[in-house]
This record gives sequence, C-alpha cells and structure tokens, in this order.
Amino acid sequence: MPFTIGETALSGFAWACILIHMTVRVAVAGASGYAGGEVLRLLLSHPGVEIGALTAGGNAGARLGQLQPHLLPLADRVLAETSAETLAGHDVVFLALPHGHSAAVAAQLGPDTVVIDCGADHRLTDAADWERWYGSPHAGHWPYGLPELPNGREKLKGTKRVAVPGCYPTVSSLALAPAVEHGLIADEVVVVAVSGTSGAGKSLKTNLLGSEVMGSLSAYGVGGTHRHTPEIIQNLSAIAGRRINVSFTPVLAPLPRGILATCTAPIVGEGNVREIYERAYANEPFVHLLPQDQWPTTAAVLGSNAVQLQVTVDEDLRRLVVVAAIDNLTKGTAGAAVQSMNIALGLPETAGLSTVGVAP
Amino acid sequence: MPFTIGETALSGFAWACILIHMTVRVAVAGASGYAGGEVLRLLLSHPGVEIGALTAGGNAGARLGQLQPHLLPLADRVLAETSAETLAGHDVVFLALPHGHSAAVAAQLGPDTVVIDCGADHRLTDAADWERWYGSPHAGHWPYGLPELPNGREKLKGTKRVAVPGCYPTVSSLALAPAVEHGLIADEVVVVAVSGTSGAGKSLKTNLLGSEVMGSLSAYGVGGTHRHTPEIIQNLSAIAGRRINVSFTPVLAPLPRGILATCTAPIVGEGNVREIYERAYANEPFVHLLPQDQWPTTAAVLGSNAVQLQVTVDEDLRRLVVVAAIDNLTKGTAGAAVQSMNIALGLPETAGLSTVGVAP
Amino acid sequence: MPFTIGETALSGFAWACILIHMTVRVAVAGASGYAGGEVLRLLLSHPGVEIGALTAGGNAGARLGQLQPHLLPLADRVLAETSAETLAGHDVVFLALPHGHSAAVAAQLGPDTVVIDCGADHRLTDAADWERWYGSPHAGHWPYGLPELPNGREKLKGTKRVAVPGCYPTVSSLALAPAVEHGLIADEVVVVAVSGTSGAGKSLKTNLLGSEVMGSLSAYGVGGTHRHTPEIIQNLSAIAGRRINVSFTPVLAPLPRGILATCTAPIVGEGNVREIYERAYANEPFVHLLPQDQWPTTAAVLGSNAVQLQVTVDEDLRRLVVVAAIDNLTKGTAGAAVQSMNIALGLPETAGLSTVGVAP
Amino acid sequence: MPFTIGETALSGFAWACILIHMTVRVAVAGASGYAGGEVLRLLLSHPGVEIGALTAGGNAGARLGQLQPHLLPLADRVLAETSAETLAGHDVVFLALPHGHSAAVAAQLGPDTVVIDCGADHRLTDAADWERWYGSPHAGHWPYGLPELPNGREKLKGTKRVAVPGCYPTVSSLALAPAVEHGLIADEVVVVAVSGTSGAGKSLKTNLLGSEVMGSLSAYGVGGTHRHTPEIIQNLSAIAGRRINVSFTPVLAPLPRGILATCTAPIVGEGNVREIYERAYANEPFVHLLPQDQWPTTAAVLGSNAVQLQVTVDEDLRRLVVVAAIDNLTKGTAGAAVQSMNIALGLPETAGLSTVGVAP
Repeated sequence: MPFTIGETALSGFAWACILIHMTVRVAVAGASGYAGGEVLRLLLSHPGVEIGALTAGGNAGARLGQLQPHLLPLADRVLAETSAETLAGHDVVFLALPHGHSAAVAAQLGPDTVVIDCGADHRLTDAADWERWYGSPHAGHWPYGLPELPNGREKLKGTKRVAVPGCYPTVSSLALAPAVEHGLIADEVVVVAVSGTSGAGKSLKTNLLGSEVMGSLSAYGVGGTHRHTPEIIQNLSAIAGRRINVSFTPVLAPLPRGILATCTAPIVGEGNVREIYERAYANEPFVHLLPQDQWPTTAAVLGSNAVQLQVTVDEDLRRLVVVAAIDNLTKGTAGAAVQSMNIALGLPETAGLSTVGVAP
Repeated sequence: MPFTIGETALSGFAWACILIHMTVRVAVAGASGYAGGEVLRLLLSHPGVEIGALTAGGNAGARLGQLQPHLLPLADRVLAETSAETLAGHDVVFLALPHGHSAAVAAQLGPDTVVIDCGADHRLTDAADWERWYGSPHAGHWPYGLPELPNGREKLKGTKRVAVPGCYPTVSSLALAPAVEHGLIADEVVVVAVSGTSGAGKSLKTNLLGSEVMGSLSAYGVGGTHRHTPEIIQNLSAIAGRRINVSFTPVLAPLPRGILATCTAPIVGEGNVREIYERAYANEPFVHLLPQDQWPTTAAVLGSNAVQLQVTVDEDLRRLVVVAAIDNLTKGTAGAAVQSMNIALGLPETAGLSTVGVAP
Repeated sequence: MPFTIGETALSGFAWACILIHMTVRVAVAGASGYAGGEVLRLLLSHPGVEIGALTAGGNAGARLGQLQPHLLPLADRVLAETSAETLAGHDVVFLALPHGHSAAVAAQLGPDTVVIDCGADHRLTDAADWERWYGSPHAGHWPYGLPELPNGREKLKGTKRVAVPGCYPTVSSLALAPAVEHGLIADEVVVVAVSGTSGAGKSLKTNLLGSEVMGSLSAYGVGGTHRHTPEIIQNLSAIAGRRINVSFTPVLAPLPRGILATCTAPIVGEGNVREIYERAYANEPFVHLLPQDQWPTTAAVLGSNAVQLQVTVDEDLRRLVVVAAIDNLTKGTAGAAVQSMNIALGLPETAGLSTVGVAP
Repeated sequence: MPFTIGETALSGFAWACILIHMTVRVAVAGASGYAGGEVLRLLLSHPGVEIGALTAGGNAGARLGQLQPHLLPLADRVLAETSAETLAGHDVVFLALPHGHSAAVAAQLGPDTVVIDCGADHRLTDAADWERWYGSPHAGHWPYGLPELPNGREKLKGTKRVAVPGCYPTVSSLALAPAVEHGLIADEVVVVAVSGTSGAGKSLKTNLLGSEVMGSLSAYGVGGTHRHTPEIIQNLSAIAGRRINVSFTPVLAPLPRGILATCTAPIVGEGNVREIYERAYANEPFVHLLPQDQWPTTAAVLGSNAVQLQVTVDEDLRRLVVVAAIDNLTKGTAGAAVQSMNIALGLPETAGLSTVGVAP
C-alpha cells in the first residue's frame, strides 16, 4: 500500500518519483469488456499501480491481446475466471461486471480491499428505487464516485467501496449541479443526451451492429424509462434538498465514444449564471467551463477524463441551457473509477488521468 | 402544363401512363449544392417532369457530373449562370439559393411560373421576426410547404409560390402539431434535434470537415439562437391560436443525412395521446406513427420522404415525449419541395417521392 | 407472366404503361436479412412486379416493419417460414439464404419458376473448387448473373435459374474484364477491395459491432483465403481462355454500404487502355467509365445499380490501375438479382433499377 | 539540455525521475494544424519537455483552445507568428508547416537547435526526384526519422536535423523492409493503403467535408502519382541495394485517423517468412508482429505509436501479403517526430510515447 502524499502541489511527474517504489496491486474483473478495457488503458499509464489478475466470464482462458488488441503491453496476459480466489491478494479490485454481479463478488473480497464497482449495483440509495428500476433486491449503496458533486470528494477519502456513477448521470449531474445548488432553476429539468455506442457494451445485439448504427440516429429508453433516470434525480435532489424531476431521453449516434448532454430548465432564481458555474468548477482538475464563445465537442474529450461544458440563458424563455461533453468510457466510467481509487487511497487525484483528448 | 387528375385512386404507376405525354418543365437554381442536388435526384424519378435549366453561382460552367457524381443521367449537363434569362421558359423553378437571394430572382420570373423556394426568405410571416433573426428586410411570406399541418394542404393548391420549410421546423412541427391542436400540452416545449451534417450545406468551414465531424458530437445555436426557432414557434402558435414557446437546441452528429428530434412538453389537457396521433396522421402518405413497441431511426428514412414518429407519456412527470425522424434533405427540404409542387400543380401528391428508405 | 417487349427504345416510364396490367408475382426467401431487404427495396419501385410471400428462418412470425423499418409499404407483412409451400405459386423466387441452403429449396420449386439465388451455392462451375472453398458437396452451377461480362447477357435470357455473383467478384471482374479480353495485362493481378460492413450480413459477431467498426480499418481473408477469390479467378480466366491468377485482399471500412476496388496488373499487350474501356462499356446502362479527371466514390453509387470506374496507367511501371465503385447490396447483390430477373423474363433490363445514387 | 542516459533498462517511470529537473525546451511551428496538434498532445505527456513557443500562420493571435480544444492544458496559450524570433531560444523546434516552408525557417534557427521537420521538404535524397514530384528546388535531405529501418536508429543519434517520414512511407516501408532485406520478394510490390481523413490536414476542400467523406470510399493519387511513391521506393531500394518498384494507391475512408496498408509481392527468395519478421522486429518497442491468428486494426493503434502487422503467404500464388496498421498522426507523423527527438537527444526512445491505443 502506498504512502499517502495527499494533494500536494507537485506538478507534472514529480509525484511519479515518489510513488515509484510503492505500487498498488490492482485486479480487474471483467477485463474483456469495454469498461474493463478502459480501466486497464488508464492503469497502464498510472505511475503507482501494478496490474495483477485480469478476469472474465465467458472469455476466461483467452489471451487479452485477442480481445483488447489496443492494450499491447498486456497482450500476452491470459484471462482468469472471475472468482474470489483469482481476485484475492490485491489492494484494489475493479469490478466491470454485468449489473447484479458485484455484490456477491465484493462480499468475498474482505473489508480491507478497495472495491470499485463500475456497475450499477450500489449507486441508488433507495432500495425501492432499485427494485423498481432493476427488478432485483437492493445490494445496498456505496460512496458515490463523483467527487465534483458538493461534498462528493469527502465521501470518497479512505473508503473501501466505491459505486462508480453511470455515464449519463455523470454528465447530467455535473451540468446541472451548480444551478441546482444555487436554487437557480425550477424543479423540472429536461435532459437529452446523445451517446456513442460503447455505452451499450460489447453486447451482440442487432441494433448495435455497425451496419445498423452508422448513418443512423435513434432514441431509446424514452419516456423516463432509462435506468439512469432515478440516478440523475437522486443526485440533483440530494443537492437541492427536495425532489428535482428529470425528463431524460438518451439518443444513440454513430460514434464509438462520447456523450453530449443538452440540459435545460426554467430559471427561477437570481444570480449570474456564468459566475455560479465559474466558481463551482474553478478548482476542479477535470471539469472545465469553456470560454464564452466556445461550445463543447465530444472529440475534444476523447480518451480524456475531462468534462467540457458551456452555459447560456435563452433570454426569450428565461431558460438555462447547459451543454456538456464527456467520454462515456473515461470520465463516464473508467476515469471516474481511477479518480475515485486515487482519492480513496490518498494518491494524487489526477494520477493516471489526463485532460488531453485524442483529436481529431 | 399537365392536366390535373387530382388525387385519384390510381395506385402504382397507373398515373405515370396518364402523365406520360404531358410533362412539367422544371429548372433548378443552385443545382450544385446539397438541396439542389436532392431536388434533382427526386425529379429524376418523377414521371411528369422534364428537367430543364440547371444553374449555379460560382460553379457555373462546370459539368454537373463533377459536382454531383451521383446524378449519373445528368452528368453531362453544364451548369448555367443563375439569371432570369436561364430560368425563363419553365413551368416550375426550384430555388436552392443562399438565404436572401430568392426574392430578387422570383420577382423576375413572372406570376405564372411556379416558384418553389428551398431557402428561408419567405417562411416567416412576421416582418419583425424576419428582421430580428435574419437582419435584412422582409421579402414577404409565401404559402408554406408543409401540407400535413392543419389546413396546410389547402394553402398549396394552385399556388404559384411556395416557401419550403426548414428541416428542423418540419420535423418538430409534425412531431408536436397533433398535441398542440388538441390542447394536450403546456405552452412551453423543449426540442433537442440531432442532425447529420448535410443540413449545413456544402460550406467550406473547418468544423464541417470530416476529420472534425467523425467521432464527435456538438451543439450549436444553443439558447434559442438558431434561426429555425421562430419558424417552429410560428407553426405551433398558429395551430394553438396562442403563443407556444419553444426551447430549441440543434446537435450535430457524425452522419451525412437525417434528423432525430426529441420533443417534450408537460401534459395539461385530456385525451388519449396515441389515438390523437393516430387520427392526425391516419391518411397522410408520408407521416407514419410507428407501432407501439418501435422507435424511429433516421436510417429507415434515408432518401425517403417519410416521417417516422413515436409518442409516449412519461407517467412520473406527466410529460409528452415525441421522437420523430426525417431525412433532412428529403422530407426536410427537397422532398417537401417536390411534394408542394405536386400539390400546387394538381399532380398526385406522391409523384417522384417514396416512403422507402435506403438501409442499412 | 409478362409479355416480352424486349429492349425497346422506350425511355422513362413508357414501358411502365405497357407492363401495368401484367405483373410478375415474386417471393423473397430470407426477407429479414440485408440482401433480402435490398431485393424488396428494389422490387417496391419495379413497375411489373407484385410482391408475394416473404419468408425467413428464425424471424418467421415477425412483422417485417420491425426488422426492415425502411420498407414502410411492407411494414405490416408477416414473415412466413421458408418452405416449399410458402414459396409455391410465384413466377419468381429470390433466395437470400445462408450459403448451402439454396439447392434444396430450389429443387422443390419446379422447373418453371424463375429461381434467383443471391447466395454462393451455384456460382462456381468447378466442383473441386466448390469443395475446396466451401467444404461441402457442389450443388451445380447456374447461369451467372453478371450480364456485362462478355456474352454474359445471352446466358441469362430465358433462364429459369440465376446465380447472383458475389459482391467482390462483380466489381473486380467488371474492372478487369476489358483488359483481360484484349490481352492487355499479365496473368497475375492484384485486387484490394475496401468494403462497407453490410457485406458481412446481419451476423451477430463482435467484430461487426458499431463500436468495433467505426473508426477502424481491418483486413480479413488475407493471403488468398477469401471465398470470392476463386470466383474472380473463374470470371477472368473464362474471358482470357487461360488461368488468370488473382491476389485478392478485402478490407473492412466504417461505412454500411459500398465497395471500392483497386485492381492492378502489369501491362503486357498493346492498345489504348481508355479506348478499350470506353468501347467495352459504351452501351451498358449500368457501367460507367468516368471522364478522365474524375475518380469513383462509393457515395455516388449508394443505392444505385451503377458501377463507376476509372482507368489509368502507371507509366513508370507500365501497370494498369483500375478503380471501381459499387454498392455491394445493389449492383453487388440485389440489383444484379433484379437485373438478371429482368433479362430472364424479357422485361426491360433497367426496370426497378436506377443509376442515381443517394448522396451525400 | 538533458543528460544522456542512453537506452537503459529503466522501465515504467523510473527515468521520469531522472529527467525531472532537466527539461528540453521545445517550440512547435504550425501548432494549429493536425500534425502540430498531435506533436503537442504527445509532448504534454513527455516527462522531459517544457513546451515553449507555439506559432501559426493565418491563425496567429488566436487562443490555442479555440483551435485545438482537446489540448486543455494549453488552452490559454496564444499563437505567435511563425518567425525566427519567436522560435529562437528553444532546444528543439518542430516544424509542422506546409511543404516548401521548412528550409527557410530551419536556416534561421542555427546549427545547435534540433529541428524536426514534419513536412516533406527534406525526405527525398535525390534532387531530381524532389523536383519531379514537388516542382520546386530541392532543399537537401536530412536524417530520416524512421529508426526501425535497417541502420535507421544510428543516423538519428545526435543529429540536429530530422526529416519525419510521410505516413504512407512509414507503414509501407516497415511492412516490407524485412522481406526486402532478406531478398525474399521480387522487385515489384503493390501497396494499397486505406487512410483516414486527417492525413489530408485541416484543408478546406469540398471532398474533405464530413458530408462527402462519411459513407464514402475514394481513391486518389492513382497510377503512381502520389508524392509518397518516390519515398517508399527510396526506402525499399536503399535496403535492397537495387531499385524496388512500387505500385502505390491510397484510398480515403470515413474515419479521422488510421492507415491500413496491404502490401504484396511475389516471393522469389528462400526463408521462413514469419521467422524473418519476428527477428526483424523482436526488439523494437513500437513494431509488433501479431500472433498468427490475429490481423491488425487501426482502432488498436489509435493515438499510439505502435505499428501492428501481420504477414502471410498466398500459397497458390507464392505471394507475400503483409498488412500493417498505424495511426497516421502518431507513428505516421508526430510520434515519429517525438521518437526521433528522443533518439537525437539521447533520451529514452519511448519517452512521451505509448503502445496503448484508445479503443473502441
């Protein structure tokens, strides 16, 4: 386990030197999927991590290189079966499993292991909510891996369990949190979020085939039926101290990665919108309010942990409109997971993470 | 000029036989752009049309085959200069010109020529609106080429002038018209419409380069600043008989064609939503409410004049959500133009138009 | 069965009038796949065809609208089980089945039914070739549906059986046939053909997922192992009267439709290359040699039955380079099938087919 | 200037600690383009570099954040005019300028500055070749930045001038070098390389618009007319010690980044192909021969400096077929530039570079 150096002013690679002889040993369960692959991509450039066991379900026994050919340094690793035995003996275990599988695995890992669940199982605080939306018994809730929410960072320090947020809740909550916190907007917001296809995972479904996806746009989970809806509501309501309703519609677009969320609500409070957002995120390493003439693009955050956002007011309607972009696999999943691990362990929060996108 | 046969029950190609010796002579101004090219693509399969002069601005003198290589039967046509002389002597003139150029050209064409303006110049009824949004003097308004709006078809019969709707107003207005007409929704609606890049035309702008567009999503004209906003408001307010506010945000996605609009508003009236929509479009040849379990995709309407839509109610919020898909170049521009021409001339409304998309 | 009107000079829709009261009744087996869907798309605009039974394997019982939402006029059709009973009583049956399934079905259809096999089963003339490449007993060979090959059209007139060519053999053979026929090139040619994903069908394979395909290029069937290799060799060798070797490599690219083939071989014979190609295709309705300054794009042939090609000579190497573009689903599959049907039945060859692409 | 530590066995971030207090000061001319942007993206994760002046031509005066929004840490930098003054005082200057501009700038920078030219000006050794292909006087040739070629690394050590290879020559030369070196193949090879659009730069050309590019494939520079042809020939001929002819055809495909090259030639020599390739690249950090059952994809090298390749023999034809994938902006341009800088300065060759791609 590493020595905690806190959030020192060390910039660039200075902390790399300090960490170099103390590495966290990490396992990844579900290493053959998109979320697991992205966790590994980030860990490969993390200076304080040693990558241990990699496990899978149906793909156990395969070389990682065949399933994740972009992870060249790990190409010869062979995937083990996901089990308590293979995951034992690590400081940190990332779970990138289908919904409903995390609790059982976590229970076997012991209380000293840091367990970071990229799935949905421990996100919702309300058991009834969980049962309504997922149709199974609630596994309980864990500290929520979105440190940029009000008091979000505190809950993660020293924790042994992290529930990584959903990708849509991440971008929507960060887009609206400052407005909600300052009582700026009414209780009913509308979010339409356009996403690349990797959010749906490596599932073999006809509607996810390249031939179907390219050249097409489609909505799904319309009418408040997408499972990320209660999670967005939970986040915003917690900030507001009252119920915030959210009309949420996800749209699938022909790109592998990226979410662009358009979030709008009537303005009911006072205050300079831009100042409120500037203040809210002034010290955040990953959330960037763009200069006034510039709008976010998902290409600019590809592979990066950054959130790029812009706010404006539709003066005719007195409505707030916030547009925010993330990479659904990075800040939307694996980046948040690594960021949360860093906070939980007392590592520099940005270790292994970047605000530089791969564009064009 | 053709003999009017009205909307007879002739199915298939029966009317083709009747029309075969009476053809409408058509010119297209702006034949080198995307809208002009799509008008030509449709006219090439129109049984009652003879394609006359093709004109352009900077591209005058070029072979059409070099600029529109998909229009093989017209490849050897040479583009003439857009002028009153080259456009004279046609029964119908399609104007696919930059905004602000149509009125001057139309004035020279004489009152007996059917002039169909694919540009914005004659869409807005209110001169002050026009001046606010386009910053130039109002050229007046012409009958609006969206026959599926309440009483929309009547205004087009026999007209010599047509203002072809904007692509976003087409899909948004058709998505919401039945709800507005039946007093179903509140006065403030939110529309987020995701579009392919051809809606921006063949403009040489960095943000429209393939390298910038592919793999990226971006919003533009945010905060009620897109010029299609007043046109949507105009359409819905005319139906309602009162002001309907619209929060409109367009999003650019990596595909050449297609718009998917998500339209939502609080429900305030009574009535079975599905029945209202079924009735509204039961007899429309191009607007299709999908079966209840199916959501629209833009791929399904590629190159077709169809609108595919689906409605639902978010019961938690009592909000209406309508999702509608069109091809922005077909039903969103050139298809509406041809459809309007057909109505204006008394030809079968569907001549030269299809409800069959090119997928996958 | 229609009255044969031959290839008269009737242009436009004239023949539609003649055909209007005599329709060919057509069934499509495999209507839920990409090839079957494209056959239906084309038949929907064919003036002399009535669409009868639509059948499927695993999708039998489903509404076509759910599986092929772009075929709106057929949306309410229900797919029947593929069987001799459901396919009986039609003048023409299109088979769009997995390889190996056609012969058994065809055997049950009777000798008077025109059977058009979009699969590979009856393409190869040599039984040993078939067994080597497909690993099953040879079902025999049928007249080959590529009328633009030397004497190709003759073999199709009046036939009751058609083997529709593979998509890569179509574009490669047409690109090289004139050069081979005139003894222009050496016996070893290299073809690298880049294809969209629909050529792989609606198969649920990880490497065909949108997330995998978009933003990626990959080769497959490298080293002469793709099953279309012997078919290209067969076509070119038949023209040459001697064995022509072909090094063939297919590449998968992120677009749904289209193949662009680059075909090159050392020049060994005499003759003006351009003149040879001009003469070869001067009277072909679907094969277009582009003007000298223009190169083919697949976008220009999207949804069209056209082949666009260009030839040049690398003077430093005295090599011929031909680049040709088709839509793999149209001229590469379903367009060739309909074209062959037209010839077989004595209908106008271009009925239901277009040389107009859907671009951009 | 850094202390040379050679190619020590220090793995991970160990050398970062050594370099941390001695940074190379670097300027980038042409920072607003794709090549310049990619150089900066890589430098931002290079532990031994301090980013100094950023210059541009027409974009001088602009914030970098507006032009390269993915380079968040540099967003507030303002672009200076490209001039000897602004570029003075740096240890290393990267030139990412249009062809023909590098020599004049380099001449003003003094012999002690390491100048790394991402353009073509100093790639060709033969003045007549240069004049034939580029139509201007030859500026001379510089050490060639492809260390993986035979003796390639030696030429770069300690050099003050580097000519960064073209993207197509990089992938083609690495794909064929081992075969040429071992006399395995005949003197005439065929290369067909499919590329993403960023290779064409941020040029405002109609054929590079997203609407034109998406859904389309096209060839260009066909018939041996692409300017990278003589560079490939130069590389292979230098290895062979005799003239190697290359038939080269580039194809444009709808993705922003990535080149997949298919390279084929008749086998004339003896030797185990796989062993030859294995040995050739066994110790190369960036060139990876894949396991026998696996073929390269460009997605796997997105943003990485890796080359993934696979070799096979078409036994029917006794032809070698090599397929290789790179990211044209990384290994194809900016990665090679940084790698060459590292070698020239005696830094660890892999500093700032990765073999991990961003997928899916």
